Amino acid sequence: MSHISPTHPRRLADVSSFDLETDVAVVGFGGAGGCAAIEAKDAGADVTIFEVASASGGSTALSSAEIYMGGGGGTRVQKACGYDDSTEALFEYLKLCMGDVGDEEKIRCYAEGSPEHFEWIVGLGVPYKDTEYESKAIVAMTDDCLLYTGNEKAWPFRSVAEPCPRGHNLEIEGDNGGPLFMEIVTRNVVERGIRIEYDARVLRLIADEDGAIHGLVVRIDGVEQNVRARRGVILCTGGFAMNQSMWEHYSPEVARRAQPIGNPFDDGGGIRMGQGAGASTLHMNQSFVTIPFYPPASHTFGILVNSQGQRFINEDVYHARIASSNLKQLHAGKKVFLIIGEKHWKQPNMLNGEIVSAAETIEELAVDIGLPVDNLAHTFHHYNEHAAKGEDPLFHKQAEWMEPIEGTIAAVDISPGEHGLYVGFTLGGLETKPTGEVLTMDGDVIPGLYAAGRATCGMPRTAEGYASGMSVGDVTFFGRKAGRRAAAEKG
Amino acid sequence: MSHISPTHPRRLADVSSFDLETDVAVVGFGGAGGCAAIEAKDAGADVTIFEVASASGGSTALSSAEIYMGGGGGTRVQKACGYDDSTEALFEYLKLCMGDVGDEEKIRCYAEGSPEHFEWIVGLGVPYKDTEYESKAIVAMTDDCLLYTGNEKAWPFRSVAEPCPRGHNLEIEGDNGGPLFMEIVTRNVVERGIRIEYDARVLRLIADEDGAIHGLVVRIDGVEQNVRARRGVILCTGGFAMNQSMWEHYSPEVARRAQPIGNPFDDGGGIRMGQGAGASTLHMNQSFVTIPFYPPASHTFGILVNSQGQRFINEDVYHARIASSNLKQLHAGKKVFLIIGEKHWKQPNMLNGEIVSAAETIEELAVDIGLPVDNLAHTFHHYNEHAAKGEDPLFHKQAEWMEPIEGTIAAVDISPGEHGLYVGFTLGGLETKPTGEVLTMDGDVIPGLYAAGRATCGMPRTAEGYASGMSVGDVTFFGRKAGRRAAAEKG
Repeated sequence: MSHISPTHPRRLADVSSFDLETDVAVVGFGGAGGCAAIEAKDAGADVTIFEVASASGGSTALSSAEIYMGGGGGTRVQKACGYDDSTEALFEYLKLCMGDVGDEEKIRCYAEGSPEHFEWIVGLGVPYKDTEYESKAIVAMTDDCLLYTGNEKAWPFRSVAEPCPRGHNLEIEGDNGGPLFMEIVTRNVVERGIRIEYDARVLRLIADEDGAIHGLVVRIDGVEQNVRARRGVILCTGGFAMNQSMWEHYSPEVARRAQPIGNPFDDGGGIRMGQGAGASTLHMNQSFVTIPFYPPASHTFGILVNSQGQRFINEDVYHARIASSNLKQLHAGKKVFLIIGEKHWKQPNMLNGEIVSAAETIEELAVDIGLPVDNLAHTFHHYNEHAAKGEDPLFHKQAEWMEPIEGTIAAVDISPGEHGLYVGFTLGGLETKPTGEVLTMDGDVIPGLYAAGRATCGMPRTAEGYASGMSVGDVTFFGRKAGRRAAAEKG
Repeated sequence: MSHISPTHPRRLADVSSFDLETDVAVVGFGGAGGCAAIEAKDAGADVTIFEVASASGGSTALSSAEIYMGGGGGTRVQKACGYDDSTEALFEYLKLCMGDVGDEEKIRCYAEGSPEHFEWIVGLGVPYKDTEYESKAIVAMTDDCLLYTGNEKAWPFRSVAEPCPRGHNLEIEGDNGGPLFMEIVTRNVVERGIRIEYDARVLRLIADEDGAIHGLVVRIDGVEQNVRARRGVILCTGGFAMNQSMWEHYSPEVARRAQPIGNPFDDGGGIRMGQGAGASTLHMNQSFVTIPFYPPASHTFGILVNSQGQRFINEDVYHARIASSNLKQLHAGKKVFLIIGEKHWKQPNMLNGEIVSAAETIEELAVDIGLPVDNLAHTFHHYNEHAAKGEDPLFHKQAEWMEPIEGTIAAVDISPGEHGLYVGFTLGGLETKPTGEVLTMDGDVIPGLYAAGRATCGMPRTAEGYASGMSVGDVTFFGRKAGRRAAAEKG
C-alpha cells in the first residue's frame, strides 16, 4: 500500500479492524484539547484524548494562561473592579484589532459567549481574585487578576471602543498561571473518566471514499493502532512555530527574525493531516511576534525611529503591535532604534537591544548611529516640544507617557533580525467554522473532522491587534465549541 | 455517489470508462497553458487543451504581454541596445525583489533559463524590434521593445544589481502586445495539431485511492466526460481575483481596496481542484496591487505623504511598489496624498485621485487637508532643500527626479480604499516545484498533477518587488517546464 504523502488519510476500506473505538477522539491535550474533551464528555460522548507528550499541558501550560474575557456588563472580576464592560465594546474592539483578516462571525461568537465562558472556566475551579493589577506589564507577577493586556487605551483603539481591562490572570504569584490552569483542566478531565493515551503519536486520519473522517491511526508503544471515532476527530495539535522549515515556508518575515515560543510538538502535524484530508488552510503567513518592550513601563516614554529618523507608531501600544510595526520598517532601510532619556532607560530589561550610542544632543547621537541628522533632530525636537504639553499630534500617544526626552540620550538598536529579543508563534492554520467544523476551500464541511486552537486560524489572527489572553481565550472557547459540536453528531 | 466538496476528486474506481484519452491534459489556454501544450507536444506527447472560454487568450491576452528577460550577457535586443546583462545581476535583482517570500530555486531557474526562453519565444514567431523605449511608462505605446519595467534604477535595488532594462515589448503599436502574443501562441498550438476543446469546463480531477491523478472530468456541450490523461494533468487555470469572495477571503487587504484585473474565468477553480486533491497552497495572501502613478512621468517629481505628513518611499519606484507602500500606511491613519507642484501635475492621468486642495504654501495646504502642519512643513522644506542639490538623504530618489516643489502646490488624495485607481490580481496559489510538479504540505509530489501560471505561487510573489513582464515571464517560462515534465512521464 503506497501513499502520496504521510498526511494523506488512510482509506477506511483498508482498515480491516479497529483496535479502539470511541465517540470523540481528541488529538492533543493542551488548552484546546482539554476543553474540547470536557465539553464532549459533558454532552454525553465517550471521549479519548491522544497526546504525543507524556503529560498534558501543551503550549497553554507554557503560557501565562491569561484569558481575554469581558462583555455582558462585565465578568465578576470586572464588576468587582468597577468596570461595566459591554459586549458591543468587546466586539468592536476585537474587530478593529483583527482588521482586514478578522473573521466577524468568530469575533461575534467570542464576544457574545465571553461572559458564559468566564463562568464555565470558574466552574472548572480556576481561581480569579477580584482585584486589578495596575502596572503596565506583559504578565501580572502577583496573584491579582484583571489587567490591560492589549491596545485598549492606545490610539486608535480607544476612539472606537471604551477602554476596559479584559486580561484575567489566575490567582497565583509569579508567571505560573499556565501550569495551574492546565493542572485544573487535567483534573477535570480525569475526574470525568475521560480516557487519555499519553505518548501517543497520531500518524494520520482515516477517511472514507468521499472524504469523510472516521478515525485515526495512532502509534502507541511502537504499535500502530486504528481508532474509530464514531462522532468525530478533533485536531487540537497546536501551531507550527517549532517546525522551523514549515514556519519559514509560510510565514518567513517573522520566522527569520524571531525565536519560536511553544512546546516542541507545535510542529504543524495536525494542520498537515487536516490539509491532507482536504481542509483549507487560512492566513498561514500570519504570526504573532513580539518584543518585550516593557517592563519596565518607563520605556514607553521613549520614541521608536526608523532608518529615516521618523517615528512610526505610538509607543504606548501593546508590545506585539510594536514588534509588528518594527517589521514594517524593513522595506526602506533596516534599522529600528529606541531613543530614550537616561531617566527612563532601566535595567534589567528583556529587550536584548544594543546601546549603540549615548550622547548629550540628538544631533551627536544621529551622527553616531548614522541616521539623517536633520530629520532625526526634527523628529526629536517636534516630539519634545509637544510632549511638554502632553500632546502627540502624530500618533496620539497618551499624555501619561509623554515627557520630553532629556539628559543623556541613548539609542538602543532593536532592528529586527539584528538586535532585540523577537519571539513569535503561528496564527494561521486549518479553516474552521466557529463550531470547529473543518472546511474545504469550497466552504464545505468535512464530515467527522473538527479542529480548535492554534491548529486552526482562530479569532486572533494578527500581531498588530493581538492582546495577551486572546490565544488561550480562543483555544479554550472554540475548543469547547468543537467538543460540543462533535458530541452532538450521530455516531 | 456523494462528495464532500465540488473539488474533491472523482474516484478512479468510479470511472467505468473514459470518453477521451490523451497523454497530457492542459486545463486553460492562456499563456501558461499554451506554452505548456507546445512543449509537451514537442516532447512527443499527445496533448489536449481544455479551455472554458470560447477562444484562447486567458489573462495573458488582456495584458501587454511584456516579458521580463535578460542575463547571459543580454538577449539579442539588450545587446543591440548596448546592455550586457548578466545572469547574476538578474538573479540578485529578482532575489531582492521577492524578499522574504521569494523562492530561490525558482528565481535561479528563471534567471538561468532566461536567455534560452527569449530564443524560444522568438522561435514561436514573436517579433521584437532591436530598439529601446526610453520614457518612464507602464506600457510602451510604440513598437519599441526594451524598457525599464521595474525598480532597477531605484534605491535600494540599484545598489545590489547593475540596473538594466529587461521588459521586452512586442513589435506592435499601442497596448496590443497581449492579443498578438496569444495569437502567435495559438497559431503554434494549432500548427502542431494539438487538440483543443473550447467551451469546456473542467469540473474535477480523477484520482486513484492513493491520490495520484489520472485525468479529469470535463463538461462539454452540457455533457460530463471522463478524460484519461496518461502522463498528467497541467492546471493553467489562472488566479482568483475575479472571484471576489475568494480574493477577499485570502487576501483581504488588497481585495477590499482594488479592482480586479484579469479575465472572468480567473475564479480560482483550478486552485481549489488542486487543493482538493491534496495540494498545498502558498502565500494566498499575496496580491499584485498597483496604481497608475505614471505616466505622466512628471508625477515622479512629487512626494507621497501619509497621515503624519511623512514621506515613506522613494517616489521613483515602480508603480506597484508605490501602491504596496501606500497600503502599509493604513495602520496609523488612513491617508495618502501626492503633494505636487503645478509644473509637474499633468492631465490626463489615470490616478483617479482627488485634488483636495491647492495652495501657495505648504502650511496652508496642511491646514486645508488636515495634516499636522509643522510635520508636513518639515517634510516639504527638508525635501525641497535637498532636492535643490539633487539629493534625497531619506529615500535616495534618483537625482533626475528631484526638483524643489514650487508654485501652486496640489494635494491629491490617493488614500487606498477612498480614492485612487487601485487594481490588482492574485499571486498566491498551488505550490509547485520549478518543474511544475504539484506538492503536498509534506513536500511530496502528487503523481500526475502539474500546474503553472497564476494558478500557482510562481516566481513573482509580491507587489513590493514586482516588475511588468514578471507574470507573463513566469507563466510562459514555467508553463514550458510543466509541459516538458509531464510529457516525460511514462503513460
